[in-house]
Amino acid sequence: MTFSALTTDLYELTMMAGYYTAGMDHRASFEAYVRELPAHRSYLVAAGLEQALAYLEGLRFSQEQIDYLRRLPVFQRVPRRFFDDFLPAFRFEGDVWAVEEGTPMFPHEPLLRVTAPLGQAQLVETAMLAIVTFQTSIASKASRVVAASAGRPVIEFGARRAHGLEAGVLAARAAYLAGCVGTSDVEAGFRFGIPVSGTMAHSWVMAFASEMEAFRQYAALYGEKTVFLIDTYDTMKAAERIARSGLRAGAVRIDSGDIVAESRAVRQVLDRAGLQATDIFISGDLDEYTIRSLLDRGARANGFGVGTALSTSNDAPALGGVYKLVEIERDGRMAPVVKHSPGKASYAGVKQVWRSMEAGRARGDLLAEAAEPGPVAAMPLLSLVMKAGRRVEAPPPLGDLRARCLERVQALPDEVRRLEGAATYPVEVSEHLRRLTDEALASVRS
Amino acid sequence: MTFSALTTDLYELTMMAGYYTAGMDHRASFEAYVRELPAHRSYLVAAGLEQALAYLEGLRFSQEQIDYLRRLPVFQRVPRRFFDDFLPAFRFEGDVWAVEEGTPMFPHEPLLRVTAPLGQAQLVETAMLAIVTFQTSIASKASRVVAASAGRPVIEFGARRAHGLEAGVLAARAAYLAGCVGTSDVEAGFRFGIPVSGTMAHSWVMAFASEMEAFRQYAALYGEKTVFLIDTYDTMKAAERIARSGLRAGAVRIDSGDIVAESRAVRQVLDRAGLQATDIFISGDLDEYTIRSLLDRGARANGFGVGTALSTSNDAPALGGVYKLVEIERDGRMAPVVKHSPGKASYAGVKQVWRSMEAGRARGDLLAEAAEPGPVAAMPLLSLVMKAGRRVEAPPPLGDLRARCLERVQALPDEVRRLEGAATYPVEVSEHLRRLTDEALASVRS
Repeated sequence: MTFSALTTDLYELTMMAGYYTAGMDHRASFEAYVRELPAHRSYLVAAGLEQALAYLEGLRFSQEQIDYLRRLPVFQRVPRRFFDDFLPAFRFEGDVWAVEEGTPMFPHEPLLRVTAPLGQAQLVETAMLAIVTFQTSIASKASRVVAASAGRPVIEFGARRAHGLEAGVLAARAAYLAGCVGTSDVEAGFRFGIPVSGTMAHSWVMAFASEMEAFRQYAALYGEKTVFLIDTYDTMKAAERIARSGLRAGAVRIDSGDIVAESRAVRQVLDRAGLQATDIFISGDLDEYTIRSLLDRGARANGFGVGTALSTSNDAPALGGVYKLVEIERDGRMAPVVKHSPGKASYAGVKQVWRSMEAGRARGDLLAEAAEPGPVAAMPLLSLVMKAGRRVEAPPPLGDLRARCLERVQALPDEVRRLEGAATYPVEVSEHLRRLTDEALASVRS
Repeated sequence: MTFSALTTDLYELTMMAGYYTAGMDHRASFEAYVRELPAHRSYLVAAGLEQALAYLEGLRFSQEQIDYLRRLPVFQRVPRRFFDDFLPAFRFEGDVWAVEEGTPMFPHEPLLRVTAPLGQAQLVETAMLAIVTFQTSIASKASRVVAASAGRPVIEFGARRAHGLEAGVLAARAAYLAGCVGTSDVEAGFRFGIPVSGTMAHSWVMAFASEMEAFRQYAALYGEKTVFLIDTYDTMKAAERIARSGLRAGAVRIDSGDIVAESRAVRQVLDRAGLQATDIFISGDLDEYTIRSLLDRGARANGFGVGTALSTSNDAPALGGVYKLVEIERDGRMAPVVKHSPGKASYAGVKQVWRSMEAGRARGDLLAEAAEPGPVAAMPLLSLVMKAGRRVEAPPPLGDLRARCLERVQALPDEVRRLEGAATYPVEVSEHLRRLTDEALASVRS
């Protein structure tokens, strides 16, 4: 994936040109975080950092892009050297602190912090938010869907409902990170090494002279471990024919109908034919609620394919992430700042999040100023991932991040992980950070 | 934008390989449509065709992609010639019929139809749905937001909340198509020629020693037509200072607070200072409902910036579009087919939509078989846009599509365009199409 430097809000560019023209190249820090959890979420799962860092490392303005900008009416008074010298040589040279992908996070806790010359740090706002909050939305939803499936594998199936093809690929990545076992999106397999899987569509079944002919042809090519889609015409008849056929399907997929009743009846038919090893795979507009309900009502399911819910986080399709200026260099030193927002808590200064662990369980977090010492037996969640525009180390393999994500979510208090009526996870704000914020507010010279 | 041939569901590739292996290269037609409108939508605005056709024209498998596929366990029994001969030479060679972008559409009406050798027509399912239903979601939402603004310009501001950077660019396109006057997304301007605009962020104001200093610096560079963001510290104080300053701002932007009261008070302050020409621009978590409410309650607004609602269609983030096999070649002729879906109406065969117009107003649509003659004074909505894999003509300029979209939406019955409690637009199904569907269902050999 290549990124365009122009996939940003115009004001990021006008502000950068403004800082450049005014000679304001002092450093500033911005933090990206979410102010409030959406309804139906009790924790977030941070995701998208890898793409955010790739964006920062690759950020360049092509001559064609510079020529486009130069011709925009708004830029007519901007000095020519901005287009002739500054943009062609532009590189992101800042530092980034961030939490590891797959970490459960809470409101006000920074997902990442960018420290760079003011114009650079401002420029990347739009991209940092779009990249990180999108994947975080999807991973947060996926974590719930995986929990509801109670150990049964969940495969992400949502490419066709995603917000375009690229969103589908990134959603597949975030869903896998949060615990799905694979995706139907082949590009996500190609690009990220995620296991890909698929079955057959109703159109395959309809393209043959009979349903059994469609199954036989598929099995001939893909082996008896293949998955037969059995609801094209009549689910029970299809199951009975498979049972009689001698075909040893890996699984049957039911995509519609009364899933509870039909999955139980299909299970009986298969078992009676000695096909205990043939799994039942369920799909069709599933999410964490329908999966839980199906299981509660006794559906026989060995796995789930989930589409729209995973590729769009359909009940909370946007997180409302913000990227706020928290400190700025003044007279040679970094000064904490904060915007006064009536009714919205905001904290000045650069921050660290400390998670207190006890016997492998997360007890609560402390949001503190970055330089404060942390509590005993707490671990800091943010670490330096980019220094002067270069990644500090190679990103961990996605499979490792996925394994750690599952552990970290599991370590949250049970009552926080409830699908409904979940408890609020305790996040304290340090005394020092509150004082810093009060001082920054008091010094505001509007 | 380049597309990857692998941004598709694995089963599209396994089915294509299956058809290839079975020597099934007869032709088939698939139609993409939406079965039901989401809540809070009374019409759709078709969008995304241009990107869908670009995808089809550019569809190629690179050697690296082919090597990846060849190594997947699922493909181990597929004949080598599929990877050695078929995939390297693959081109989409089908025909596409589609409605023009910007056309208001209703459930069951095809947005596009693909007719191609079975494997090709199947392969492109995922991409056709992802590309067309995403932009259609956004255009449909944008049409409502534009209607609510009652003639005041709406600018799309949602890049940071979109499902990744590419989704933001395409959302900007769809929002413009449906009547927004511009976008903040510079890439959308660069790629599609959409007018771009922007103001300043709170961080700009905070980066200077005082708010007025921030405004003066900006105005010095961007002229007095610029937009000052006035809610960083105290909206009324900022307005009063601007009024006293002699700066002739193009507009002030209010992004938070009690918009109704503050916009009225700001208007008074500006007017008393002779700044009648300074507009008030409103932003901050707006959608069609908040805009209408602000205007109903007397807010003074000359324009709106709308983010999340436009870039994610947040109350209906996925349309649930389907891509269904509707006819398949049998014994040398195309035979209508349909999948029996209990509780879901589906119609066999390839279709045309006829829109009856009377005195410039749309009276209702007829969904008919493609070859049926249309009613008198009705116009067919689908036309041939791609023949044998090549576009029939250059796409119309986006600005022309936008102008026609506004006219066509305006031509819908008033009661269908209501934001709430809208009437259902009448769509009839032709007798012939019903009969064809019954015959296709009767002939199903499950």
